[in-house]
Formats: sequence, C-alpha cells, structure tokens
Amino acid sequence: MAPRSILFLHRKFSVASALLFSLSLISPAVGGAIPPRSDSKSCNSPRRFGFLLPRSFSVLDVFGPLEVLQALSRQTHLELALLSRTLDPASTAPVAAGMNKFNSSFYPTVVPTYTYADDPPIDVLVIPGGAAARSPDLGPEIDYIKKVFPKLQYLITICTGAGIAAQAGVLDGHRATTNKAAWASMTAMGPEVKWVSPARWVEDGKVWTSSGVTAGIDLAFEFIKQKYENGTAIAESAAGSLEHTIITDWRDDPWSARFNVPVSN
Amino acid sequence: MAPRSILFLHRKFSVASALLFSLSLISPAVGGAIPPRSDSKSCNSPRRFGFLLPRSFSVLDVFGPLEVLQALSRQTHLELALLSRTLDPASTAPVAAGMNKFNSSFYPTVVPTYTYADDPPIDVLVIPGGAAARSPDLGPEIDYIKKVFPKLQYLITICTGAGIAAQAGVLDGHRATTNKAAWASMTAMGPEVKWVSPARWVEDGKVWTSSGVTAGIDLAFEFIKQKYENGTAIAESAAGSLEHTIITDWRDDPWSARFNVPVSN
Repeated sequence: MAPRSILFLHRKFSVASALLFSLSLISPAVGGAIPPRSDSKSCNSPRRFGFLLPRSFSVLDVFGPLEVLQALSRQTHLELALLSRTLDPASTAPVAAGMNKFNSSFYPTVVPTYTYADDPPIDVLVIPGGAAARSPDLGPEIDYIKKVFPKLQYLITICTGAGIAAQAGVLDGHRATTNKAAWASMTAMGPEVKWVSPARWVEDGKVWTSSGVTAGIDLAFEFIKQKYENGTAIAESAAGSLEHTIITDWRDDPWSARFNVPVSN
Repeated sequence: MAPRSILFLHRKFSVASALLFSLSLISPAVGGAIPPRSDSKSCNSPRRFGFLLPRSFSVLDVFGPLEVLQALSRQTHLELALLSRTLDPASTAPVAAGMNKFNSSFYPTVVPTYTYADDPPIDVLVIPGGAAARSPDLGPEIDYIKKVFPKLQYLITICTGAGIAAQAGVLDGHRATTNKAAWASMTAMGPEVKWVSPARWVEDGKVWTSSGVTAGIDLAFEFIKQKYENGTAIAESAAGSLEHTIITDWRDDPWSARFNVPVSN
C-alpha cells in the first residue's frame, strides 16, 4: 500500500512528480547521491508507436493497449501513428455479410493519421486482430509489414493480429502466440512460426505477441515495465486508474486448456 | 467444459447456431417440446445504443463495452449511435496542456455518427469518463443527458462517466459507483447520489454504473446476461473469444480498499 502522500499525488495524475518527490526525500538520506541510471532505458525506450488499422480490426485489440500507452504518454514523450491504406476513416465493419447475420450497425470508424505509403518513422508497430485476420484482401497490409519490419525496434501483435504478421512472414523462426479460440486457423497461417501455448503473451527479442484481445492489455503493461524508466511504478499506477488487475505471469493462460490447445514445448 | 462440437462451431463465431443445434439435440429427448420463452427478453431487449463522446473521453471506457456489445450484435440486431457536439472527429486530447506535460501526440479521434441536436432514438445511453469528467466545459453534454434521460430504457456510466451523469443530476437518489482512484472528486459532483463502495458495478433500476475503466467490460457482460435471450451463453462465448475472465460478483472490488474508499451502507 502506497503512503497517503503518493496516493494524493496519484489522484492528480502526477506519478512522475510523485516519483521525483520521493527521490528528493530519499536522496539526502543516502548521502545526497542521485542513484545512477541502471541502464539506458530512457535513451533507448521506444517513442513512436504505429497501430495498423486493417479493415474489420477489433476495437479492443487497438484501444486496450492504446489506453495503457496513453497513460505512459502522460509520464514521458510518446507519439502515435494510426496507419491505414488511405486517410479515410478506418472501418471495423466486416467485409462479408455472413459475419453480420443480424444486419447490425455496430461498427465504429477511427481516423487514420498516416497511410502505409507515407511510411512515417516508427519504433513499434502494433498489429491488432479481429475479423481482419481472416480477410482475403490483406495485400497492402502485408506489404507494409514486410517493408517496415526490419526498421522496427519492436513488433507487437494482439490476438489474431499474429495471423496477419504470420502471413507477412515476419514471425518465421520466432516464438509467438495468438488467440486460443482461433488457434488452429491462425497457426496454420505461419507454419514456420514456433507457436507457444499456454501463453498470455510471448516475448522473443523484438517480437512480442499476445493471446486473445484482453491479453494485449497485460502485454502493454509488461512492455512498459521492461522498456521505460520507472516503468513498474508507471504501470502499477496506470493499472490502479484503470482498475485492471495485471496478469504478470506470461504463462498464466486458462484459455489454452479451455479451448483444447495442446501444450507446446 | 463444452463438448468439442460446440467448440468447433464457436470457433466459427456461430454461437446462435450452436445453441439452436443444442436445442435440436435436446428437444426430442424431452418429448419434442420447445421450451417456452421464460420472459419477453427478446421483445424488450434494448437494441439502440448511444455512446457519448465528450472531448477527452477515455478510449477504453468506450471501446471495452463497445467490443462486448459488438459481439452481441453478431447474435442479435443492434444499432450504434456515436454522439458528439458536431460530426467532426471527436478528440480524446486533453483541453489543458497541463494534462499532457510531455507534449505527447497520443490522442486518437473517433468519428461521431450523430450530434446531440440530432437526438436519434436510443434505448441505452453509455457515458464514458476520462479527463472529460473534470472538464469545465460540459454544458452541451449535460443538456443532452438531461433531455434524453427520461426517454431511456437504461443509462450506463463507465468509470468517471458517473461524474458527468451526476453533474446532469440524473443519478440523484440512485445507488451508483465510480472510479475508486477518483472517488473524492467524482462523488463531490453528486451530493444527492447514494454512492456505493466497494462495487465493481451497481445496478439500480434503469441506472447501471461501473467503477474504473475495465469495470465497464464486466458491466457489459452482466448487462447482456440479464437483458438478452440466451444472454449467458452469448456472454460466456464472447468472453472466451476476448479471453476475458468475467468478474461476476458486483461486490468484487479490490480497488476500494486500495484507494482507501470507505465502505458504504
């Protein structure tokens, strides 16, 4: 339990201030020395995030991790690129009428900020899933992923976004996971991928992949903890505001058994 | 654990078919009788959802419940209205520079489909929170909420959206909850509200309110279970696809203690 002074500051969304305040209290007690930065996290931390918005993307695949990263963006400088084929609002609606049997109109649109052709500089590409992953018309997305992958610090996939990345070949040889309810169809898209189950998420060098939808939120918290200065404090504070109990063990995945996904090596 | 045949159908996103298939197996065994509909859920179920998009709304407050309801919309007809002051893309960016100290550009925009003046017919209004709740400029939102509330079947608030609803006076006399990390400031906005803690969410007649951000996802699942035919099966299937472990007890709220919120009567 954090002391009251920290909570009070927290309520004002000022974690960075709280941390500086704590340091200012602690430092004199240890002889005035400012603790050295244990690594160069602050220099190497990725700043520029691109989110892919293919037709029929899952909104929670995008906005779960995005909300978590937005909390981080209030503690350190971050930039967001929302990438699509054109600058027209990106649609979440399914292409095939069979995916919307009851003729519902429940498909919001989101405004892209760059096209794939713009190819803005990004450090991290986040690929969401949803019905998008089963689309037969992913050519421009796959071309863009292939082109940008070598330049990335990190590739992050959410849910069946791993199927899209697999189709682009960028997961080949990597350990990766995906939605356990869609395991057979998604893993078939990447026969050269080392698919891992059970797994809430999998880290493999520059490639981070998460399981179904809400697993992307836990991946985002872990990413912040590992890659940003004061990441653990920032993640835990943000989780409090979101009232999200972070799943901290990447192997904590009840859905693999639930959907009869075999245990991988 | 569901039998394999059901899981297979589930993977094809066809819960309704699976349920009909199950009924076709079960019915002959009980004499061919189709079980009577236990209530008129299918007639009275709300169909038309409006989401309020005030400036600086939290994206996860909107897109968490929206993703859950979108899953429902693949099993029954639903309509979505995204409501804002104008049809210009609704911004999530804070109004005050002090809310974005590191000059981050991490604020997506979402396309509204109606203005408040359009006043489209809706059965449910969903009010998200975020920095929006602390805005001094909520006049048009408050006017709209006051106007539409008497016509609604249900009002749903997510996170600090309860603060916005409280400012409109529509929570007065109702039992309600809100984000525990923002408890003091939000409850001060509604001195006539019967604020409840601990609570992941609170149902009080036509008013459903949820605690911080991700609590809106659990509220949405509970709403589906209670208000739609086959709601429990639909909710559980959708939770599997989202890999979300639903919090099913509205009193299951560790954040009240974490943020020192007093227990209410």
